[in-house]
Amino acid sequence: MTSRSLDIIAIGDAIVDVIATCDNDFLQAHGLPKGSMQLLSPVEADRLYDQMGSARETSGGSAANTMAGVAAMGGRAGFIGQVANDQLGKIFSHDIRALGVDFETRPLDSELPTGRCLILVTPDAQRTMNTCPGASHQLAPDALDETRIAEASILYLEGYLFGPELPRRAMMRAVEIAHAAGNQVAFTVSDSVVLDGRRDGLNAMIQGGGIDLLFANEEEAMMLTRTADVDGAIAALRHKVPTLVITRGAGGALAVEQGARTDVPAVQVQKVIDTTGAGDLFAAGFLAARAKGHGIDRQLLTGGIAAAEVIGHFGARPVADLMELVKL
Amino acid sequence: MTSRSLDIIAIGDAIVDVIATCDNDFLQAHGLPKGSMQLLSPVEADRLYDQMGSARETSGGSAANTMAGVAAMGGRAGFIGQVANDQLGKIFSHDIRALGVDFETRPLDSELPTGRCLILVTPDAQRTMNTCPGASHQLAPDALDETRIAEASILYLEGYLFGPELPRRAMMRAVEIAHAAGNQVAFTVSDSVVLDGRRDGLNAMIQGGGIDLLFANEEEAMMLTRTADVDGAIAALRHKVPTLVITRGAGGALAVEQGARTDVPAVQVQKVIDTTGAGDLFAAGFLAARAKGHGIDRQLLTGGIAAAEVIGHFGARPVADLMELVKL
Repeated sequence: MTSRSLDIIAIGDAIVDVIATCDNDFLQAHGLPKGSMQLLSPVEADRLYDQMGSARETSGGSAANTMAGVAAMGGRAGFIGQVANDQLGKIFSHDIRALGVDFETRPLDSELPTGRCLILVTPDAQRTMNTCPGASHQLAPDALDETRIAEASILYLEGYLFGPELPRRAMMRAVEIAHAAGNQVAFTVSDSVVLDGRRDGLNAMIQGGGIDLLFANEEEAMMLTRTADVDGAIAALRHKVPTLVITRGAGGALAVEQGARTDVPAVQVQKVIDTTGAGDLFAAGFLAARAKGHGIDRQLLTGGIAAAEVIGHFGARPVADLMELVKL
Repeated sequence: MTSRSLDIIAIGDAIVDVIATCDNDFLQAHGLPKGSMQLLSPVEADRLYDQMGSARETSGGSAANTMAGVAAMGGRAGFIGQVANDQLGKIFSHDIRALGVDFETRPLDSELPTGRCLILVTPDAQRTMNTCPGASHQLAPDALDETRIAEASILYLEGYLFGPELPRRAMMRAVEIAHAAGNQVAFTVSDSVVLDGRRDGLNAMIQGGGIDLLFANEEEAMMLTRTADVDGAIAALRHKVPTLVITRGAGGALAVEQGARTDVPAVQVQKVIDTTGAGDLFAAGFLAARAKGHGIDRQLLTGGIAAAEVIGHFGARPVADLMELVKL
């Protein structure tokens, strides 16, 4: 590796978040399960947007948020994701580059616009996400920069994008490149496992040794393994992935690595405003600490600090000085 | 007036704010006077945007912010402004309607995109605005809905848009309609008077009895009247406009109406984060109270409360429950 190569390169949705507050009745009236993520067609997205309150826009995307966090903590991060050649695509590209993340994927000249995620935040700080993926799901294997993937120590894959055929093929190709170069592959389950046809594909990849580091929250781990409690999920996964990381919300986080389990408590937050991005920033802190060579405790703790920062305000990207907060 | 008519209808820039923080050195390096507003060409705007940090987007525009505030305080508000038929135009239109403001101006199919304002917020909470007006400056007289203007008790005009030829002609036409219907015309100076050719046009309109209610901050009032202190400015203006309102930042605000002067102190703010929109929301509170028939003291005080809310967070539109805060 040269000094110019990356610590981590991610593949994920390249989308702009459209964040509005709403009450519980609004979710119910629109049949949106609180805390979940739905995929919407353009028509459905327009209909929901028309009903939503006034919003603020910020660049989003789960793995993109994670790379933004890694860069904010001093890590060398890159991102691969597909925007369209439009105003929202320019906003996404500007923001991720302004944060110091290497982003070179060419915008797509297509009918499909840059993806949006309509995020509804209820007074209990829960976020309900409604994604209209647009160009983001058109990420093709030939959009990958193979040299950059080969040169990054960790390849990080987002579950949300592990479903549509083109990006899934791109991800599988990226895994081959990373492993051929001796790099680690990390995967975040997102709540992608609830979506049709994803669980089996993901389990096959895990079974085949494709994943070295798996991130999931408790619910996702249980859904993935069809188990009824988190210990069952851990038992089912611990021998299949070298490093398993499970986040537990207010219950903290745990890792099982080389057979040993480490638990850490959650970082206290004065007032939780918007939980969007909690998982994304946990992964960012974990990976940033890992890239600097810190041990598993420090990786988990740094994840907790970064997650605590992002849930204290609206939006899924850090606003405080994470470098100062985590002191890696 | 029927029960469906508006309390206030505004004409102003229809733009999306792109808000990022920066340090003083950044302003200096780019030759941007702190606290000012510059007009940028598309090329200049792209160059500045490339250098700016990661941003958040919210719908903006001075008079549009004011109408958003009026609606949030229970007033019946309408807005006239020009967006393009693009993604940012859809964001602007969605947000202002979602806030309950009547907005019917048809998007323009043009080469020019919807206007943007690149807002740089320094650690002292001062905002420096860099506007690329785009379609906003293409507002033409025939875009006006004359019936709605005639039926609104107050017509509110934004100084920023009183410069380019087309929108100035639209404004002059709107003033004729409003006065023919026996309605009041309010005008906010913005810091538009620093721009070429605007001071004389504005003074001519004041001289000709076109303005019934004039909003300015101290500096704007002095620039408009070429006086060296605020008392000189008041002396120069008090007999030319029936109601003169001057905001004084931390010094509060004053009005001179029918020869009598009323002063109110500023509302205390715990921590000032971003002064963008302070003047806009002051005008909103003042006008909302005026529309409900409250006296001049209450109009000034309500303006102060609304301004205090908006400077406590990023962005120029209220996020707290203004209805509850002002209890009109």
